[in-house]
Amino acid sequence: MSRTARELAGHLGAELEGDPAALISGVASPESAGSNDLIYVDSAKHVGRAAKSAARCALLGPGIILPGKTQLRVARPKLAFAQAAAWLISAPALVRGVHATAVIAPTARLGPDAAVGPFAVIEEGAEIGQGEQIGAFCYVGRGARVGPRTILHPHVTLYAGAVLGREVVIHAGSVIGGDGFGYVFDGARHWKFPQVGSVEIGDQAEIGCNTCVDRGALDATRIGSGTMIDNLVQVAHNVHVGEHSVIAAQTGISGSSHIGDRAVIGGQVGIADHCRVEAGAIVGAQAGVPTGKTVRPGEVYWGTPARPMSKFKEQYAWLSRLSALGPKLRLLSRTDIAEED
Amino acid sequence: MSRTARELAGHLGAELEGDPAALISGVASPESAGSNDLIYVDSAKHVGRAAKSAARCALLGPGIILPGKTQLRVARPKLAFAQAAAWLISAPALVRGVHATAVIAPTARLGPDAAVGPFAVIEEGAEIGQGEQIGAFCYVGRGARVGPRTILHPHVTLYAGAVLGREVVIHAGSVIGGDGFGYVFDGARHWKFPQVGSVEIGDQAEIGCNTCVDRGALDATRIGSGTMIDNLVQVAHNVHVGEHSVIAAQTGISGSSHIGDRAVIGGQVGIADHCRVEAGAIVGAQAGVPTGKTVRPGEVYWGTPARPMSKFKEQYAWLSRLSALGPKLRLLSRTDIAEED
Amino acid sequence: MSRTARELAGHLGAELEGDPAALISGVASPESAGSNDLIYVDSAKHVGRAAKSAARCALLGPGIILPGKTQLRVARPKLAFAQAAAWLISAPALVRGVHATAVIAPTARLGPDAAVGPFAVIEEGAEIGQGEQIGAFCYVGRGARVGPRTILHPHVTLYAGAVLGREVVIHAGSVIGGDGFGYVFDGARHWKFPQVGSVEIGDQAEIGCNTCVDRGALDATRIGSGTMIDNLVQVAHNVHVGEHSVIAAQTGISGSSHIGDRAVIGGQVGIADHCRVEAGAIVGAQAGVPTGKTVRPGEVYWGTPARPMSKFKEQYAWLSRLSALGPKLRLLSRTDIAEED
Repeated sequence: MSRTARELAGHLGAELEGDPAALISGVASPESAGSNDLIYVDSAKHVGRAAKSAARCALLGPGIILPGKTQLRVARPKLAFAQAAAWLISAPALVRGVHATAVIAPTARLGPDAAVGPFAVIEEGAEIGQGEQIGAFCYVGRGARVGPRTILHPHVTLYAGAVLGREVVIHAGSVIGGDGFGYVFDGARHWKFPQVGSVEIGDQAEIGCNTCVDRGALDATRIGSGTMIDNLVQVAHNVHVGEHSVIAAQTGISGSSHIGDRAVIGGQVGIADHCRVEAGAIVGAQAGVPTGKTVRPGEVYWGTPARPMSKFKEQYAWLSRLSALGPKLRLLSRTDIAEED
Repeated sequence: MSRTARELAGHLGAELEGDPAALISGVASPESAGSNDLIYVDSAKHVGRAAKSAARCALLGPGIILPGKTQLRVARPKLAFAQAAAWLISAPALVRGVHATAVIAPTARLGPDAAVGPFAVIEEGAEIGQGEQIGAFCYVGRGARVGPRTILHPHVTLYAGAVLGREVVIHAGSVIGGDGFGYVFDGARHWKFPQVGSVEIGDQAEIGCNTCVDRGALDATRIGSGTMIDNLVQVAHNVHVGEHSVIAAQTGISGSSHIGDRAVIGGQVGIADHCRVEAGAIVGAQAGVPTGKTVRPGEVYWGTPARPMSKFKEQYAWLSRLSALGPKLRLLSRTDIAEED
Repeated sequence: MSRTARELAGHLGAELEGDPAALISGVASPESAGSNDLIYVDSAKHVGRAAKSAARCALLGPGIILPGKTQLRVARPKLAFAQAAAWLISAPALVRGVHATAVIAPTARLGPDAAVGPFAVIEEGAEIGQGEQIGAFCYVGRGARVGPRTILHPHVTLYAGAVLGREVVIHAGSVIGGDGFGYVFDGARHWKFPQVGSVEIGDQAEIGCNTCVDRGALDATRIGSGTMIDNLVQVAHNVHVGEHSVIAAQTGISGSSHIGDRAVIGGQVGIADHCRVEAGAIVGAQAGVPTGKTVRPGEVYWGTPARPMSKFKEQYAWLSRLSALGPKLRLLSRTDIAEED
């Protein structure tokens, strides 16, 4: 929808300079913007790109000067840009109505205005909230419950009994509620430990493509409200993730580990079983948090085995120096040290 | 199905103390158990939780005392719990009958009592065993063969010619028999090395969600009977995995590597091409086994490049000491060593 | 199709010795070959296997002697084998015709001879090129465009607006054009940074199973022509990959990183955001390239943080020596150093 610069400035609490009647209907990068697109500049080094843009209106950070544009000055231009996008742009509906090909069990319940795409399957006893959009090829297992205005992109699988909150988004190919991976070896074969728990995903969480969140073994796997999970992530049985945390692509969280609120987990991180990554902690990309480890609130960890970032850096600096330091020390120690391959 | 404590004790070979007529119909954690659920206690530290449980019957390890419950004493309570679950609980059928929407080629053969879910596609010449369950949206390619009582959860893809044994379980979104990743570069472009081999998965194997097992290039990729593979695992062309091995989530096994029987591979492990991980070997999470490496029977490896666990730990201990040791040695070596960043 | 040894030698520029009329109709390994299958031998150590093969014709590298076979001598037997396979074997069509169950929007356009499998969904405004094959359960979003002779295996999802070139192959379960992972935290919640850019995949690219290529945030994510991507790979928003590059399984490339032409990225590599891996560079398996890092043309990097291979090896060699060197140095430094665990 189109808004005037004045309306948008009001919505964002921005200081307006320029044409208050300028219309803004979208967001774009400086290079791809049309005249009615909003751009943002959060660093002086991008002023050149922005000055050449066709956009007439720009969100600017403190101290950024962009002559010739209608300027909306804010403390955090990137944040304001995201907020502006949320206000201006409504994504076209993924699905409209209930497609004739969908297979909906007689005992499944659909809320008002729920939309179901072609070839979706909704099993017995499932509950679909008001205004939900269920994409093509989605599978909603027996007794699964999905809150209002949640969106399932194509090819999402909800195993029986999965519970999703309101305004959740699950991207294509993700699987919620698969069996956890737990076996007991009797010396000859593996016995499957029962995987009969539940999985619950809070409100306004977003889960990327081809991600897997397993059900709990006996109790629940839980993802808190407002938590964002990227593509190809593995969340094992009994894991609890708090609220407003961020988990980047290809990370794996093993059984019974707990992630607190507002934690930031980089890409390809491995968190072993029974760990605690507490509120606001940060785990850097590819780090490996060993079994039972606690990362305390606000700490920053890196490496495998994961350790405080400062310790990782110090150790790595010494490792780097060894090439120069080593030969001298070797002489000094007057010793024959066998080369290891 | 409900069993008495006496029946269950007989089945498990447990020593029974308490009410032999107590009915047991399910398994649960101490907190979530109802009175007819079985719980287990394998460590004295969980006695407190168990004592407060509503469960009337408990599997207990040696020396664990739990007054007020009907007690089934066994050597390995967690194993007995898994065995009890397998005996007590029969998962509700994923699919019943052949759904009217399934597209089954005229030359495909379905065994007696095979069930096919909505929108499944079974191509020419495929063979589906007796009592098999094929979930919604499964794709069984031309000439694929699936053994009796195997279960394909929704959205499984079997490429043409894939062969699965009996009582296999494949979870949602997994792909069996995709092309291996092999190319020959001619200096200007990549030529695809032919990927025309087969893929065979043994009896009672279980494969998690969104896992990929590629077909062989010219010969076969094989997963042995009783082997368990977690979510998001990559098994490349020509890999052989033995029997009763366990491979945790997000691990990747490159072309032509062989994993023996009863091996344990942690999560996010990378095994390069032409490796051998022999029977009973353990590779720790995130380890990277370099090209052509052999891990001998029963060895435990960790790190990248993977090395014996004891060596990894020793090296890591020295790395940790360098921060303290380094500055003194530096002085000692009376040398100016340039800092590396 | 069958060719004579003479025809194949002509096609490959091979030197022929033996029966020019020998028929060749396929390719195989020495062990699995029938008499009309072509085999190749690129190393003297495989001569024994080849000599026992039923195959009558063999591609041989310089200096390899294989008596009793019709021999096609070439400089690079493995390359010639791949080229022979491309010439001899035409994979059976995945799909033929437009299946009655496919749901094709009225405004979607199908090129001549395009084939659409059962239960495929093609949304409004999508364009499907001539001779394309769209597998079962594929989802082609609104306005997506797919070039001629491209093949989508079952369960591929193209989000709205995705653009694929000609003769692309996308394997089962991959998702092209999902939302990028970008949020701005306001201190209480995450605001989604707009993910409204495009995704473009060049001609003759091949993408494995269950791989994810996200759309750009504001601009485009691009994969160049002739680039090969393996299974379970994550390509984030705004990434550009050049032409004829190879990216192995489970690798992740973070936002706005650029990979040049003819780069080789091993398996499970993590490339952080805003990196440049330039033309012909090689990044070894499991390496982690830190934010903003440039790997220059032709360089070989390994480790986390990724560094030149020679430096990695030197550092690792010193780390290995520490176990022997350390205790002596410790004595030498006459210091009590606390053990770290």
